Amino acid sequence: MKFQISGTYTDLYQLAMGQAYFINDLHNKPAGFDYFFRQLPFDGGYVLFAGLSDLLQIIRTLEFSHDDLVFLEKKGFRKDYLDLLKKFKFTGNIYSIKEGDVVFPYEPIVRVEGSMLETQLIETLLLNILNFQSLIATKAARIQSVAEGKTLSEFGLRRAQGPGGVLASRAAVVGGFDSTSNVFAAKQFKIPFSGTMAHSFIQMYGDELKAFRTFAEAYPENCILLVDTYDTLKSGVPNAIKVAKEMEKKGHRLHGIRLDSGDLSYFARKSRQMLDDAGLEYVKIAASNQLDEYVIRSLIQQKAPIDIFGVGTNLATGKPDAALDGVYKSIMAENEPRIKVSDSIQKTTIPGPKQVYRMLDENGDFYGADAIVQKQESELSKMIDPFDEHKYMNLSGIASEKLLQPVMKRGKLQDITTDIMEVKAYAAKRLEKLPPEYKRFENPHKYKVGVSPETKKL
Amino acid sequence: MKFQISGTYTDLYQLAMGQAYFINDLHNKPAGFDYFFRQLPFDGGYVLFAGLSDLLQIIRTLEFSHDDLVFLEKKGFRKDYLDLLKKFKFTGNIYSIKEGDVVFPYEPIVRVEGSMLETQLIETLLLNILNFQSLIATKAARIQSVAEGKTLSEFGLRRAQGPGGVLASRAAVVGGFDSTSNVFAAKQFKIPFSGTMAHSFIQMYGDELKAFRTFAEAYPENCILLVDTYDTLKSGVPNAIKVAKEMEKKGHRLHGIRLDSGDLSYFARKSRQMLDDAGLEYVKIAASNQLDEYVIRSLIQQKAPIDIFGVGTNLATGKPDAALDGVYKSIMAENEPRIKVSDSIQKTTIPGPKQVYRMLDENGDFYGADAIVQKQESELSKMIDPFDEHKYMNLSGIASEKLLQPVMKRGKLQDITTDIMEVKAYAAKRLEKLPPEYKRFENPHKYKVGVSPETKKL
Repeated sequence: MKFQISGTYTDLYQLAMGQAYFINDLHNKPAGFDYFFRQLPFDGGYVLFAGLSDLLQIIRTLEFSHDDLVFLEKKGFRKDYLDLLKKFKFTGNIYSIKEGDVVFPYEPIVRVEGSMLETQLIETLLLNILNFQSLIATKAARIQSVAEGKTLSEFGLRRAQGPGGVLASRAAVVGGFDSTSNVFAAKQFKIPFSGTMAHSFIQMYGDELKAFRTFAEAYPENCILLVDTYDTLKSGVPNAIKVAKEMEKKGHRLHGIRLDSGDLSYFARKSRQMLDDAGLEYVKIAASNQLDEYVIRSLIQQKAPIDIFGVGTNLATGKPDAALDGVYKSIMAENEPRIKVSDSIQKTTIPGPKQVYRMLDENGDFYGADAIVQKQESELSKMIDPFDEHKYMNLSGIASEKLLQPVMKRGKLQDITTDIMEVKAYAAKRLEKLPPEYKRFENPHKYKVGVSPETKKL
Repeated sequence: MKFQISGTYTDLYQLAMGQAYFINDLHNKPAGFDYFFRQLPFDGGYVLFAGLSDLLQIIRTLEFSHDDLVFLEKKGFRKDYLDLLKKFKFTGNIYSIKEGDVVFPYEPIVRVEGSMLETQLIETLLLNILNFQSLIATKAARIQSVAEGKTLSEFGLRRAQGPGGVLASRAAVVGGFDSTSNVFAAKQFKIPFSGTMAHSFIQMYGDELKAFRTFAEAYPENCILLVDTYDTLKSGVPNAIKVAKEMEKKGHRLHGIRLDSGDLSYFARKSRQMLDDAGLEYVKIAASNQLDEYVIRSLIQQKAPIDIFGVGTNLATGKPDAALDGVYKSIMAENEPRIKVSDSIQKTTIPGPKQVYRMLDENGDFYGADAIVQKQESELSKMIDPFDEHKYMNLSGIASEKLLQPVMKRGKLQDITTDIMEVKAYAAKRLEKLPPEYKRFENPHKYKVGVSPETKKL
């Protein structure tokens, strides 16, 4: 199965609308779109924005293959329109908040400017990549926020949503995970991988001690033994201790043991005791099995002596939300601001090209307020709640930074990092600046996002 | 971004265990694995099995690329092991229940037999493809079961889990959907696609009537107009009626209107009335916006005059479960049955190669009982609850069919269909045979899965 993403990685209506524009010779008229979301996932207080550099690299080389065009012609698209698609290259401008930053509802995270045709054709792709990676990076950041510096490893591929699991591994690292079990993702994105052993390995030998010995001989430097195939405390841990002692004689050290079932807190404490009693204080304990941010928080709170957490399904599928509701809305057409006036004020869009200012406190930490302003405005003295104009906040004298920066100019990628470890480090720095009340799981404080009086007028 | 699935589409530990087998010259010893799941998703009564033909086609050509091998060598894998992987080809046997059948907890859905190395290397891939597609096909079947024959269109790509959305489109069709908006999936899997128009199209023109006219001119044969950009009943529907009348004069017919916000039942009824009053009884009403099986059931129950349902996020991400918990467990090693005796009886595996018999009633419908038997058994007179040996069911005189059939022999694909429309038709036939008490959403009846006395002994 090949997943070479091409121009057909989109919804049919994008191609159909594009053809209608083409027929009316409107396809080259200027247009602008904002990417933003409305609802915070996981009942949380923020989203960690991820997926940008992937997206830009796909857009940069996006084209329609010969096969695509043959397929579309068979499906009834016009030959002259397909001739245009044959030469398709994205040549617009993209402004974006930096990948790894924290973002909040209704603020424009990405703005795309270009021709009607090209801005429309990348919509589905943009939403697909950014919504999903931001969801998973947010989940990972939540887990990281309660893990007190323990090692975090993602291994969700087996229950991930098909090849979505590859992007999940990337986003998990952006959100603070140390490694993935996913070899494909490790290779593609240059992220660290890690792995232990499966129950099947022990069953193959039919003898736990023999299986442990074999594995330790194959991996003397980085051996983690899975101890719960038969009986964790009566067989698994004693056999691991035996092998660890044998390894010591050969000048090696057992790296760890892994618990994958039962009461992890209980088994970790008992195992730690047994390891320590045998003088194996250095042997680490890894735990897995249906972990998420709540279970890990509970294990930490119980002081379960676990050094490494392996997180699979709940992380890789962003459970229970499974999706971020990001949208891509028209803000400009033919150089005129465009607004969608909906029956619901929450569905009304904010027109025109905008900048987002993040207010900073005296330490440079986030103040709890982002202001959306028209691009050409220079002074910012107050912001208004977009849904209730009687609520406003005075901003004069408060330091701020501009969040939206050009990342693609006329189709050319600007100088942005593609190194995931750099993005991860940036995310950690930005999360650090976000006060704890926005990061707590229960009733997190609502980060204020307002609009300038000028924007409100529009 | 390329997603050419290769041998690295796996968890690191599979490659690490493979190397340990290789070092001990065990990699060619025979092994066997069962794929099954434990927990029914969506609190439902069945799983619709999907993804098989995709999986087999990937396995058939699975290999390690030169890049993969260079990467693994850099990461410390042994040269002699990598030389083996360089020649890797799956040469084992696979038995499977037919794609599109309904399946139940604990019964083996797929059995893989081959060398220790090859059976282990395909584990993650198998789980990744089958778990996800079965989840989505099941969700689609649930939606289809309450849609009373209305047209169903999937359009979840924008909020799907990255490229997982492509497989979601396929699985949705297997589960009973009529089409997808996903052009990539339509091309790759030869499934019907469909699409309407977006709000942005209307905003681009700044004039709803003009936008409608333009679209109708471009698509006179299959035009669906989105009527909720400004005011559905005061602007959208009246404008659509105007355009429909203009189309009639040119000998065309407006195909439909689409509602994408607000109270769908109310707006559908009002719109239907307005269309009918204008003599446009033939114009269909399509509805979308956060639909799932419960909302659609409610709309149908309210007799909302909706002809086409468009379902996105909830379907394409399998909300709220987001994952099926399928596992791949060792059942044989070196021609000996292998069992994993867990602290929890639910986690104990059933050893040995097995067949699944589905009991049939006098009409050929499903009887409500599947029996897991050892492959070599010929007579089946009763089955026992695997978790409570005091519970059994007499089976003598009951007709049955064998569900597991060879689909790959020594690495060669057997004659199985890759035509999704055939798989979809088969799924519909099998779902038809499943009595309604297993399909209801609230407290569905539990389908009995038992083991033969022989299997119980093992």
